[in-house]
Amino acid sequence: MLTLTQEEIRNAVRAALHEDVGPGDVTTLACIPPEATAVATMNARESLTLAGIAFAETAFRELSPNVEFVRLAEDGQAVAAGAGVLRISGSARALLTAERVALNFVQRLSGVATATARFVATVAGTRARILDTRKTTPGWRRFEKYAVACGGGTNHRVGLHDLSLIKDNHLAALAGAAPNPVAAAVNRARELWPALRVEVEADTLEQVRLAVEAGADIILLDNMPPARLREAAALVAGRAQLEASGGVTLNTVRAIAETGVDFISVGAVTHSARAVDLGLDFA
Amino acid sequence: MLTLTQEEIRNAVRAALHEDVGPGDVTTLACIPPEATAVATMNARESLTLAGIAFAETAFRELSPNVEFVRLAEDGQAVAAGAGVLRISGSARALLTAERVALNFVQRLSGVATATARFVATVAGTRARILDTRKTTPGWRRFEKYAVACGGGTNHRVGLHDLSLIKDNHLAALAGAAPNPVAAAVNRARELWPALRVEVEADTLEQVRLAVEAGADIILLDNMPPARLREAAALVAGRAQLEASGGVTLNTVRAIAETGVDFISVGAVTHSARAVDLGLDFA
Amino acid sequence: MLTLTQEEIRNAVRAALHEDVGPGDVTTLACIPPEATAVATMNARESLTLAGIAFAETAFRELSPNVEFVRLAEDGQAVAAGAGVLRISGSARALLTAERVALNFVQRLSGVATATARFVATVAGTRARILDTRKTTPGWRRFEKYAVACGGGTNHRVGLHDLSLIKDNHLAALAGAAPNPVAAAVNRARELWPALRVEVEADTLEQVRLAVEAGADIILLDNMPPARLREAAALVAGRAQLEASGGVTLNTVRAIAETGVDFISVGAVTHSARAVDLGLDFA
Amino acid sequence: MLTLTQEEIRNAVRAALHEDVGPGDVTTLACIPPEATAVATMNARESLTLAGIAFAETAFRELSPNVEFVRLAEDGQAVAAGAGVLRISGSARALLTAERVALNFVQRLSGVATATARFVATVAGTRARILDTRKTTPGWRRFEKYAVACGGGTNHRVGLHDLSLIKDNHLAALAGAAPNPVAAAVNRARELWPALRVEVEADTLEQVRLAVEAGADIILLDNMPPARLREAAALVAGRAQLEASGGVTLNTVRAIAETGVDFISVGAVTHSARAVDLGLDFA
Amino acid sequence: MLTLTQEEIRNAVRAALHEDVGPGDVTTLACIPPEATAVATMNARESLTLAGIAFAETAFRELSPNVEFVRLAEDGQAVAAGAGVLRISGSARALLTAERVALNFVQRLSGVATATARFVATVAGTRARILDTRKTTPGWRRFEKYAVACGGGTNHRVGLHDLSLIKDNHLAALAGAAPNPVAAAVNRARELWPALRVEVEADTLEQVRLAVEAGADIILLDNMPPARLREAAALVAGRAQLEASGGVTLNTVRAIAETGVDFISVGAVTHSARAVDLGLDFA
Amino acid sequence: MLTLTQEEIRNAVRAALHEDVGPGDVTTLACIPPEATAVATMNARESLTLAGIAFAETAFRELSPNVEFVRLAEDGQAVAAGAGVLRISGSARALLTAERVALNFVQRLSGVATATARFVATVAGTRARILDTRKTTPGWRRFEKYAVACGGGTNHRVGLHDLSLIKDNHLAALAGAAPNPVAAAVNRARELWPALRVEVEADTLEQVRLAVEAGADIILLDNMPPARLREAAALVAGRAQLEASGGVTLNTVRAIAETGVDFISVGAVTHSARAVDLGLDFA
Repeated sequence: MLTLTQEEIRNAVRAALHEDVGPGDVTTLACIPPEATAVATMNARESLTLAGIAFAETAFRELSPNVEFVRLAEDGQAVAAGAGVLRISGSARALLTAERVALNFVQRLSGVATATARFVATVAGTRARILDTRKTTPGWRRFEKYAVACGGGTNHRVGLHDLSLIKDNHLAALAGAAPNPVAAAVNRARELWPALRVEVEADTLEQVRLAVEAGADIILLDNMPPARLREAAALVAGRAQLEASGGVTLNTVRAIAETGVDFISVGAVTHSARAVDLGLDFA
Repeated sequence: MLTLTQEEIRNAVRAALHEDVGPGDVTTLACIPPEATAVATMNARESLTLAGIAFAETAFRELSPNVEFVRLAEDGQAVAAGAGVLRISGSARALLTAERVALNFVQRLSGVATATARFVATVAGTRARILDTRKTTPGWRRFEKYAVACGGGTNHRVGLHDLSLIKDNHLAALAGAAPNPVAAAVNRARELWPALRVEVEADTLEQVRLAVEAGADIILLDNMPPARLREAAALVAGRAQLEASGGVTLNTVRAIAETGVDFISVGAVTHSARAVDLGLDFA
Repeated sequence: MLTLTQEEIRNAVRAALHEDVGPGDVTTLACIPPEATAVATMNARESLTLAGIAFAETAFRELSPNVEFVRLAEDGQAVAAGAGVLRISGSARALLTAERVALNFVQRLSGVATATARFVATVAGTRARILDTRKTTPGWRRFEKYAVACGGGTNHRVGLHDLSLIKDNHLAALAGAAPNPVAAAVNRARELWPALRVEVEADTLEQVRLAVEAGADIILLDNMPPARLREAAALVAGRAQLEASGGVTLNTVRAIAETGVDFISVGAVTHSARAVDLGLDFA
Repeated sequence: MLTLTQEEIRNAVRAALHEDVGPGDVTTLACIPPEATAVATMNARESLTLAGIAFAETAFRELSPNVEFVRLAEDGQAVAAGAGVLRISGSARALLTAERVALNFVQRLSGVATATARFVATVAGTRARILDTRKTTPGWRRFEKYAVACGGGTNHRVGLHDLSLIKDNHLAALAGAAPNPVAAAVNRARELWPALRVEVEADTLEQVRLAVEAGADIILLDNMPPARLREAAALVAGRAQLEASGGVTLNTVRAIAETGVDFISVGAVTHSARAVDLGLDFA
Repeated sequence: MLTLTQEEIRNAVRAALHEDVGPGDVTTLACIPPEATAVATMNARESLTLAGIAFAETAFRELSPNVEFVRLAEDGQAVAAGAGVLRISGSARALLTAERVALNFVQRLSGVATATARFVATVAGTRARILDTRKTTPGWRRFEKYAVACGGGTNHRVGLHDLSLIKDNHLAALAGAAPNPVAAAVNRARELWPALRVEVEADTLEQVRLAVEAGADIILLDNMPPARLREAAALVAGRAQLEASGGVTLNTVRAIAETGVDFISVGAVTHSARAVDLGLDFA
Repeated sequence: MLTLTQEEIRNAVRAALHEDVGPGDVTTLACIPPEATAVATMNARESLTLAGIAFAETAFRELSPNVEFVRLAEDGQAVAAGAGVLRISGSARALLTAERVALNFVQRLSGVATATARFVATVAGTRARILDTRKTTPGWRRFEKYAVACGGGTNHRVGLHDLSLIKDNHLAALAGAAPNPVAAAVNRARELWPALRVEVEADTLEQVRLAVEAGADIILLDNMPPARLREAAALVAGRAQLEASGGVTLNTVRAIAETGVDFISVGAVTHSARAVDLGLDFA
């Protein structure tokens, strides 16, 4: 499970403040004296799984190093509608000016965590683990993967560099040049990148068989119905790990998980997660 | 309507490629010879309003300056399910390595544009225009505002710096110090920032009256039912512009629009837009 | 009035130290032992209005975090010739190496503040306020606007993005396409940028009339003699704010201010302010 | 003489455009269609020595790579009031949006060149050359030194790193530790930095003598009247170069130059140069 | 095998030019007119394996985009003493100013490639492949790994993120908490990072056995003499890959390679490679 | 002698950690609990001259600000094989993750210092000082020069900007245009860069004579045998400083030093220094 450094959080928060505040929060500068203080609580307005609380703290603290916090919940924790997650006290200007940036981070990351937690709960008791994908918001890959982990999901590869995932288009390119493109691709990857695992995409049982024989570490079973997944699991018999993928929803995920696959990857938890509702209430 | 520069698109795409490709696309490097070429089409897998096509082109071209494009649709255009939006030909390595980044941008921005276009269509024929909010993905403010405009929406303020929006918390801070906090806040903003417009949030008709008398340019009517909005519009009688806000959905937006307000701001088009489905099909 | 963040001050000071010190202050490294300490006072060598004292402190502190300060004057304050503005004690190396950078900032910014204060004093008792312009040193826009505010001036728009200022060249471009270019331009700006104010440049009374009727928030009266300005003020009768501009000097500014305009913009306070003389005297 | 690279010019221009245009030139976007073209000439509104013409070209070209130029004058050239320096044709949007940034660079740098040229002309026929100082605008050191060279001046050290300049405060620090602080300082600098020249500040003839004997390459004669400078020159008799410094004006510079010193350094040409007046006239 | 992008090469070359040239090549600016041209050849002064030729080209081209090249050898090629590797023609200033930077890159990278090629040649005919390590120059990881590949070596993991390598210190930390620390560590890594391979360090045959049973993908045999390596290979019998490591020299590498290990990692090819001698000869 | 700032050390260390750790040290994250602590000692595994200890401390502290250190040796100090140089205690994760980066810096910089110290010791008792060259690792110029100083060497020019070094190729370019190219080049450099020293390369005694007469500050005697160096020293007779250069080794350097030259420059101390062996031993 991926962990975030304070530095990358700070950099993202600074960029977000720069983007939102620009040359200055003209309303707050006009209405609020520099010495005024305030106390506020960030409250969940619906039930959610929390992620990103450190982003919120960083946003306020960037504007005023003396802001103080009481954490009422931690990342990864389920929070009921109406419950508080963070109490903030300090410069009123800092609280008002950073409010939107703090909420934008927590709402979106908790949205990813909450969506993930629903999938994870739905497959509870099976061997299957929920994986994220590369269908993330550009610039947010690590933050969203962190949120997936907060929701109980497991992180798949970080990017194109840390696992060889041989897909149909890669195999097509080798089709003319090698009698067994799957074996050729696996061997070539092993030779060039001895430190990396190799995964092979398979659309049919025949391709599953070829992938196992080529020594793939993981086989990606793309868009197969549960019955076919079950056959694939029987055929592989533990010689490789299995990842089911393709159009997975809360309605279908349990049946997939019960086929015996090791992993189910779900793009929707990152590419289409709805921001959950949180708000800042001033005392 | 906000326009994006080629430079900011390029910077975002470069960062996204850096994030996804990292030290290299190990699978493509292993399987695809450097000189191989390919042709692919980006197709809509559902009906959508397009936004972000230049991000896709930039992604491919960053990896190979000789990639060529035929645009089959332009940003802002409605695209039917199954229709193509971009034909790409050139280095097979570039096409495979940049595919995900290109799709991630177009899917998300088109998601925002598509959500916006639905709201815009629903209020057609009324005077109300659909506004975006500051509830955007940190780092994506300008991209998402651009996508809102592609969907026919109107851009509200860019950030905290280009309009004074006096909210209840600002007024509360002035409550002790001034007999008429609304007037005090408006005057103070006018004095400090003569170049900027002033908007005042109002929760009641009495506050609407105070805001008009203080000379607000725009009044934000927060969470008012249609009947109350109608009363507010009658009270204001054109002396200020009116923005309705708060929990607006496709079900409620038409009734709001028919009350005579000038603007309706909708956070959901940015903070909770689902990515629309597009895919890259190789010839 | 614009406020500067500690971060933007620090970034500018760091860049200045990098520029001046480069790989090292060879003389100080050769002559001054690392443990030596010193005490110095920054003194005004002519009467001035102070601006930028935080830049000086930051310069010394960047080189040695333990340097200590006693502020003898604050930004915005009038300082007599010979009076001190800052007492500095700490590492002798830091004091000697940062001296020039510290002085370069304070001399220039105080130069802007001092020039502004003279204009402000000259129009005292009239309704007119002194505005800055966009004729600033590239890279110093915010610093110089801050110095203008220290001198009692008012900040005009930050840049091309936060106010529509329709000038003759913009109108000329619309001349063929619209019967009333002023109205067309104002309407177009209102439609695209509902959050922003609109200002229109007028060279004649007829243009002033058109601008008022088009609903301009501010009218820029360019290069008009006082008599004409007075006529313009009478014609507008409070329906828009008025800004006088063009070749304003200390000799002419009072007469302009007495015509009843709201603002007088003066490029010279930024583009041609002379650096005022301050020096560092070691105890 | 210092030369500027295209890259540093481009970086400065980009930062200036970012500062001035921010999220967009709202007026030009509203009024000028993207395909409109225009022709304009940058004209001198007073007589001046030109510097910075490449900054202007870069500003326009950054916004539209197809803008075309005809140079009517080159950097370093004297330009009469009313004469043109650059003809620009291309995208009307680019011309209007970059106008102010282009002018801000050329006006300021030509201001420095023009002030320098006046000092250079005043000492014509003597052996003395006009030097710049480190009293430059932070961030503009190289640009202003370039402008000094355009005006016929000679560049002194770039910063604290490329010449040892031993001043009174350095000597004071060595006073207790060495019988002859001047010799000690010179020797120490020679030992540590064999690649660098050594200059010593002298306020009296006795200090001049010590500096010569210590082997200084250059002696800085600080605030000496012409008679004293003449004595110093006689005393040194060519064994070191001489730089006169301190309160030099157009009224005093000729007399100083005639004393036989090699260099006269003038802070005012950078720290207090008035921007010269140039404007952009559209055809 | 790792490939370098033109962008990372350009960034490194720009930083190197900035570092070496700083504010300007004062000698070349003084002596060489801007319009002078020259022709030069980069020649090997000893036999070597070439790496980094693109860095050299980039260095010259950064200073003058019109410089032209004829490549006389390619990266990875053996070059005899006295043979040319690159012919360069164009601006004399660019050639003289970039000469040292170009040579510094090629000499160092070819030094790494040449050292690697010697190890590779020495193990020719065995199954063992020469791996690099993480003992690289900070900032040069990818460049040196590229040079290793040019010399015929194989790249080990890029960094701490793309392979789990469980060393003695990791196991020691688990010793108290788990009955079989090796199995605990392998399982924990598999669970957290399903996309990554797992390697385990072993100092004894017993540890080798534990690592195989825990399902390690690779076993690092640290500082074992050839006889022990042979025993380890027999014990593992193909169930995992084997990497020999520790104090490998040209004298010992052949005997190690003949034990049947898959990989031999050699820190010296990066941390102690001598720069090979090349020079630039002007025509 | 060049000194490094904490900021440049931190920047280099951060970049190195980013390069090595990337998205995370997967092994340490899997095996070591966040709250575990450890104590380790960095020990010399061979005799060496230490350089770069602050880089090591910075590496650990970047990952955990609470790590504590006891320095057992300082930069510039000779350390015996087996002796410790730094004791580190704190977060076990920080110690394990930063170990390689810390060692990579200290091993390489101490390698340079150790090589330099050998040359310095070999010329002890002569007037000659050992100089570095520009043959440094791109990006490491200042670090390697610092290490040379730690080894008792003297720093030559920082780059192409702070000393004019007129080489044969510069003179060749002037050959047609001036009767005495050496004098022409020296004069031109003096005129353009009055703040900088001038060095001239000479391959023959005749060239030495010309350089002296032209007033060179230093003469570079390239590839001359000791007898010739001695003649050159006699000819120059103290009128300029002398630098011997070209193929200097530990075997030849003493004889060169005894000829009376002031400096001997040695490229090998930077371009070919072997990393010395240090290791981290956990308690």
